[in-house]
Formats: sequence, C-alpha cells, structure tokens
Amino acid sequence: MARRARAASLVLANCATAAKNDALHRLADAIDAAHGPLLEANRLDLDAAAANGLGAAQVDRLALNPARLTKLAVSVREVALLPDPVGDTLEEWSRPNGLKIRKVRVPIGVIGIIYEARPNVTIDCAILCLKSGNACILRGGREIFNTNTALAALITAALAGAGLPADSVQLIPTTDRAALNTLLKLDAYIHCIIPRGGENLIRFVAENSTIPVIKHYTGVCFVYVDRAADPEIAVNVLVNAKVQRPGVCNAAEQLLVHIDVAETLLPSLARALEAKGVQLRCDARSAVILERSGIPRMIAQPSDFTAEFLDLILAVRVVDSLEEAIAVVNRDGSGHSDAIITADPVAARRFQAGVDSAVVFWNASTRFNDGFEFGFGAEIGISTDRLHARGPMGLPELCIHKFLVDGDGQVRG
Amino acid sequence: MARRARAASLVLANCATAAKNDALHRLADAIDAAHGPLLEANRLDLDAAAANGLGAAQVDRLALNPARLTKLAVSVREVALLPDPVGDTLEEWSRPNGLKIRKVRVPIGVIGIIYEARPNVTIDCAILCLKSGNACILRGGREIFNTNTALAALITAALAGAGLPADSVQLIPTTDRAALNTLLKLDAYIHCIIPRGGENLIRFVAENSTIPVIKHYTGVCFVYVDRAADPEIAVNVLVNAKVQRPGVCNAAEQLLVHIDVAETLLPSLARALEAKGVQLRCDARSAVILERSGIPRMIAQPSDFTAEFLDLILAVRVVDSLEEAIAVVNRDGSGHSDAIITADPVAARRFQAGVDSAVVFWNASTRFNDGFEFGFGAEIGISTDRLHARGPMGLPELCIHKFLVDGDGQVRG
Repeated sequence: MARRARAASLVLANCATAAKNDALHRLADAIDAAHGPLLEANRLDLDAAAANGLGAAQVDRLALNPARLTKLAVSVREVALLPDPVGDTLEEWSRPNGLKIRKVRVPIGVIGIIYEARPNVTIDCAILCLKSGNACILRGGREIFNTNTALAALITAALAGAGLPADSVQLIPTTDRAALNTLLKLDAYIHCIIPRGGENLIRFVAENSTIPVIKHYTGVCFVYVDRAADPEIAVNVLVNAKVQRPGVCNAAEQLLVHIDVAETLLPSLARALEAKGVQLRCDARSAVILERSGIPRMIAQPSDFTAEFLDLILAVRVVDSLEEAIAVVNRDGSGHSDAIITADPVAARRFQAGVDSAVVFWNASTRFNDGFEFGFGAEIGISTDRLHARGPMGLPELCIHKFLVDGDGQVRG
Repeated sequence: MARRARAASLVLANCATAAKNDALHRLADAIDAAHGPLLEANRLDLDAAAANGLGAAQVDRLALNPARLTKLAVSVREVALLPDPVGDTLEEWSRPNGLKIRKVRVPIGVIGIIYEARPNVTIDCAILCLKSGNACILRGGREIFNTNTALAALITAALAGAGLPADSVQLIPTTDRAALNTLLKLDAYIHCIIPRGGENLIRFVAENSTIPVIKHYTGVCFVYVDRAADPEIAVNVLVNAKVQRPGVCNAAEQLLVHIDVAETLLPSLARALEAKGVQLRCDARSAVILERSGIPRMIAQPSDFTAEFLDLILAVRVVDSLEEAIAVVNRDGSGHSDAIITADPVAARRFQAGVDSAVVFWNASTRFNDGFEFGFGAEIGISTDRLHARGPMGLPELCIHKFLVDGDGQVRG
C-alpha cells in the first residue's frame, strides 16, 4: 500500500487543479447519493459499539445521520473552492554566477493519518490531502471500521471518475495494532504522519514512528487578566474561552489575575463563570478574595495548575506582575493558545513577545486558534510542534518546497 | 542541562541582535587569542586518535592548526554580519470580526546537535543557533572531546561577556551512549534534533528520538543528459558534479544518457571522466558503446544503480526517454540533487516538475545544492526531509513562527 501510495503521489504532485476539484465534486455528489448504504454501514458500527457497552456520548461521536452527511458533502465542495497551494513560487532570486533559483511549493508526498472515532475525519483528511496533491494512507479506529470502508469506496470511485490514481487515498483494511507498527516504520515511502486523537494515541505514534510526525496535542491554555484590563472584555473573553466548548484544545484551563486588580475584578469574573456552571480551583490568594465575596470555590491541588481539564473547571491564581504571568504561562502552560486582557499596549506586546506559544491573543478568546477562524478555509489540525507548522494548519501547511535551479553550464569552483 | 537550555531559550528568543552579535565578536576574538590552549587541547585528541590507530585522513579531520583557527574566527564574524531572522513579519491579515493576525518568525527554542569528528562543527552549530535565537545542546564525538571542551569554554565566556545566558550553548560533558539516549527522549525541553554525521548516526538518532529530527542524509544524485543536450555543457557539468569533491552528498553518483545521443555523447563524456580517474560502472547498452570506443568500463552490479559511492566511481545507464529518466531518478535516487542537461526548455521544465528532489538543476552542477552557493551566507546542513526544511538550511530554517492575534474583546460564537 505504501509503495502504491508513493507511486500515486508522484502523479498527484503534477496533476491539474481541475482534476483534483473534479474528484472532490464527484465525491460530494456520491456522498449525497449514498445516504442509504452509508447509514447502513454506520449502523453496523453503532450496533457493535452499543453491544460493546460504549456510552451514549461515545456512540454519538460515531454516528452519521442525513444532516451530518449533507454537511460532509458541503465541506467537500468548500475544499474544491479553495485555492490550490501547489506550484506557487515562494521565493525567487539570482546568484552572481547567473544561476536562477526558484523555491516552489510542492506536496509533501505521502501522508499517513492515524485517527480514532469520528467518521468525518476520513473525508476531511482525504480531501485536504488530495487538494494539496498528497497521497494519503488512512488508518481509522476499530469502532468505525465499516463506516470508513463505505466512505473509502466512494473516494476511490471519485478518484477513478476524475482520472486520478485510485491509490491516492487508501484506507488500511485492518485496525490491527501490528499493522500500525509496521506502517510507522515505512519511512522510505511515507513522508509524514499526522495522528488525530487523544494524547495516548499521539504519544504512541511519536514514540514508535521513524517517519516525521506532526503532533496535535491538546492545550493547557491561560487567560491573564492584567492590571490594565477592561473589566467587560475580561469577563466576556474569559467566559467564552472557558465555556463556549470546554472539551477542546483551545479552551482556557487557567486564569491568572494581576494582584492590583484581583480584589476588584476576581469576584465579577468568578460570578460570571459560576453562572455558567464552572468550578473554580483557587490558589490561596484568590481563594481568600472569593471567600470574602461569598463565591463558591475549591482550593486547588498543585496538579490543577498544569491540568488540562477539558471540562467546566478552571484553575485560578493571582500573580504579582506581568513578568510573573509570562513566566507562569511558559512554565505551566503547553504553548498552545494564551491570552492577555489589557488596555495597555506595552503590556500586551510584552506578553505576546514573552509567551512562547503558538498563538498569543490580546483581548480575544483563545478559542480563535482554529484554521477556519484564521480564514484558512480548512484545517487538518492545530500543530503543537515547532517544526514545519505551528498552530492552525491549512492546505499550505500540507506542502513543502523544492528548489528549481536554472543555469547555462555553471560548475562549482 | 535541558531544563537550563529551555530557560535560556526564553531569554534568547527576545534578546537584541546587538547582544547576539557582541557575543559572536567576543567569540571570534577569543578564538584568535587562544590558539595556544586550543591547539594544546586538540593535541590530546590527536595523540589519542593516533594511539587508537586512526588513519591519517581521519586524524586530519580532527586536527586544528593556526590556519584553520583563523578561518574559524572569520566564519564567526561572517555570521555576525548576517541579518537576524528573528522577529520578521511573515504574513499579516485581518478577519471580518476585526481580529488582526500577524505571523512572526521566532526561534525554534532548544536545538540538540549530535555530531561526529570535525571540531569546526562545534563552532558552526553554536553560532548559527545563537544568531537565530535558539539555545543549543551540543553532543560531539568522543574523538574530539578535549578540543570541543576547550571551544565550549570560549563560547561560554563570550556569552557571559555579552550578557547572554551562559546556558544558551552547552556541551554535554560526556560521550556516553546512554546519555545520548536520555537526551533523545527529553521532548519536554528540546524541540528539535539535528544529527550531523554519517548515515548510521542519523539513523540511530531518527530511530531513538521522540524529539523531531531534521535529517541530513547523503545523496544518490543523478545527471541526466537529454537528447537535446549541449555537448560541452554536458561534459563540464557532469565532470564537475562527479569529481570536484566526490566525497560529499551533492556529488553525482549516476549518469543517465538519452538513447538518441548515447552513441555520439557517451564516448566524450566517458573520456573526460576517465581523464579525472573516474571508474565507470555501466549497464549493457552503455557498456557496448564504450567498448566500441575502446574506453575502459566495468559492468555494473544491480546495487551500483542505487549506490552512493562517495568516490571516483560513476554508474552509467542509457534511457529511452525523458519520462524514463524521471522515473529512474524517482525510483533509484534519494531525492537530494539531480540535474538535466538539455537545450530544450520543455524537457527541462518537465524534468524539474517530475523529479521529486530537494533541488533539481537545469544545465548546472549538482554541487550547487549548498547554503553558501544559494547565497544564504551560512548553512547548518542540507535537509533530506520533507517537513520544515528541504535542501540547504540557513538561519531562517532554524526558526519557526508564532501567531500574534490582536482583538478588542472578540469572542467565538
């Protein structure tokens, strides 16, 4: 499979945008036309999940329904509308010896996607890899195997219909762990692995792969309310960052408040969070302030200050200075998405420079660390790595470059 | 050490260009002033190498002398003159909701360099990491440990003199393999590993590191002489690519000749190579042609057609078409540096698009795949990876980006 993916990738790398878009439109049409068989395949997975005792929330993550399928087809058509990242000239220059050097964007090659659960990931990853000219090998979760197989058949047919290599998108026909281990060693044919799933999956892949991995760990995100914070912005941004979708990587997990405004701002911040059902886990200083205001709070355990709750829980600390806030975020955060709330531009710039995170917000919610919110039109994930891509990854981040050098007989002296 | 490097990296990331350049000038001056102690330390390593039975060529690779030290100091001053890559705005845009997004170049963080033999690597890597705002941990070879220790002491003093954290550059005080294995797992503190050395070292690092690795494998580089090749350019470029420095990664290892010009061009190409002492290992068709011309040649073994000789040896094959040449390069090459010799621009563009290599040359020697030849002013290596960097790596390739997002209270709906 990997060898065939590599062969397909060499064709895909130079195929016309129109052919790739044709395949995407065929796929969207096929999804619209195949609700019956897709829901039937999905039913097998849902029944097995229920029989295996999965909870209702987990089963729902696996489920397709007509509305979800319609949305999936729409997302495929949206990717067809995005500009093709392949072939752009990124830089161009000449050398004194007359050599002309051009750096052009090209696909990475073959991308392996290792993922769990939700069936839309199969389509999402396939179409983003296809549009960016990459062949891909998909290894989905056991729980969703029948659904993925049905979706993969539609992809294969769409590729064939558009005259593209059928091996451009391949689903591994087993969820065997040994097959995954083999896959992760095929560095001669596969150029990049993107695991999408929980921390355990990503860590397993990172530890066992000899292929470069782009990791998408979840985040321990901070909101720092500076002494010059606008109170209304502080409340709105903090509440949004914590509660708008608490189970995702860019949700806030911790609040830092400057000592100078802790007495005045913490109670209103805490009340707004309490109204949304957020449990506060406080350091000694914030606990005293909230107790005086009669607001329920817990005393935090040390582990709460580096925790990723992914739930309606927020750690709270008082800091003595902007510099302390920066140091705490760099020490206890995960470098994902952090925000400062302040009306002081000097403090804001100092925080943005000092905090070593993928995205550093000033007076905006951490929830905006997202490919769609950035305007990329698509997202393969949010990289927590510091090589190749960092933060939201769109189509250009699925590409690399090559250099084309034109001469008229130059030799090196 | 890794923890201290991480702390130093947070300071370095925001330190002024002038301070970094001050440290570089102090280091250059210190090298100039310390020939005595450096040569004395180097003598210990050379004596041990001789006692351990290393050959003269290997011992020479370890050796410092006044000329080499002077050159080293010059290279440090040259890096001080290069533009600081840190802080550049790479992209900037606004969103309909008013968010302003800025993508700025920042250092990667902490870089681990694992290398062998030549002592100038210690200085090269330290100064490139420093100029690009990265802290680094250096793990040199056993054979050169005393020299490296003496050089590292100069670096530490230069950092202190410039008011930069002494932990910005640290040399691991042992060449123990267990220490290396520990280092390669410290992904919480070290963000990137760059191994510099032979294939075995790089493979060991890639297989054992949980930290992302940028690999610099050597190359199986091709020169394809098209049917529309200019004969003089073909001879000049091929000879240069093969013999100018045969032991390096961008030297040619294989010649492909289009069938239409094999009879006319192969004999002159072969004679020019023969005059430089190159041994030719030929496929059946090229062997017949050379035999008729009375030129010495060997019959190639199959393994010669994927071999990296790093020596005055060249594999030779005749191909039936441009498309076959492209397919052969993609199948048997290593994606490093490949060249087409042709006067036909259509063939040249087709070759450059179809060959999936880091640098694809048209009428120029493969030897130009080099950071200095590209005009980067420095080179940490030539990446054979397809993530982050591909081809020659200068200072910007030791950086990544972060996003700074400015709002006025935006929340996600």
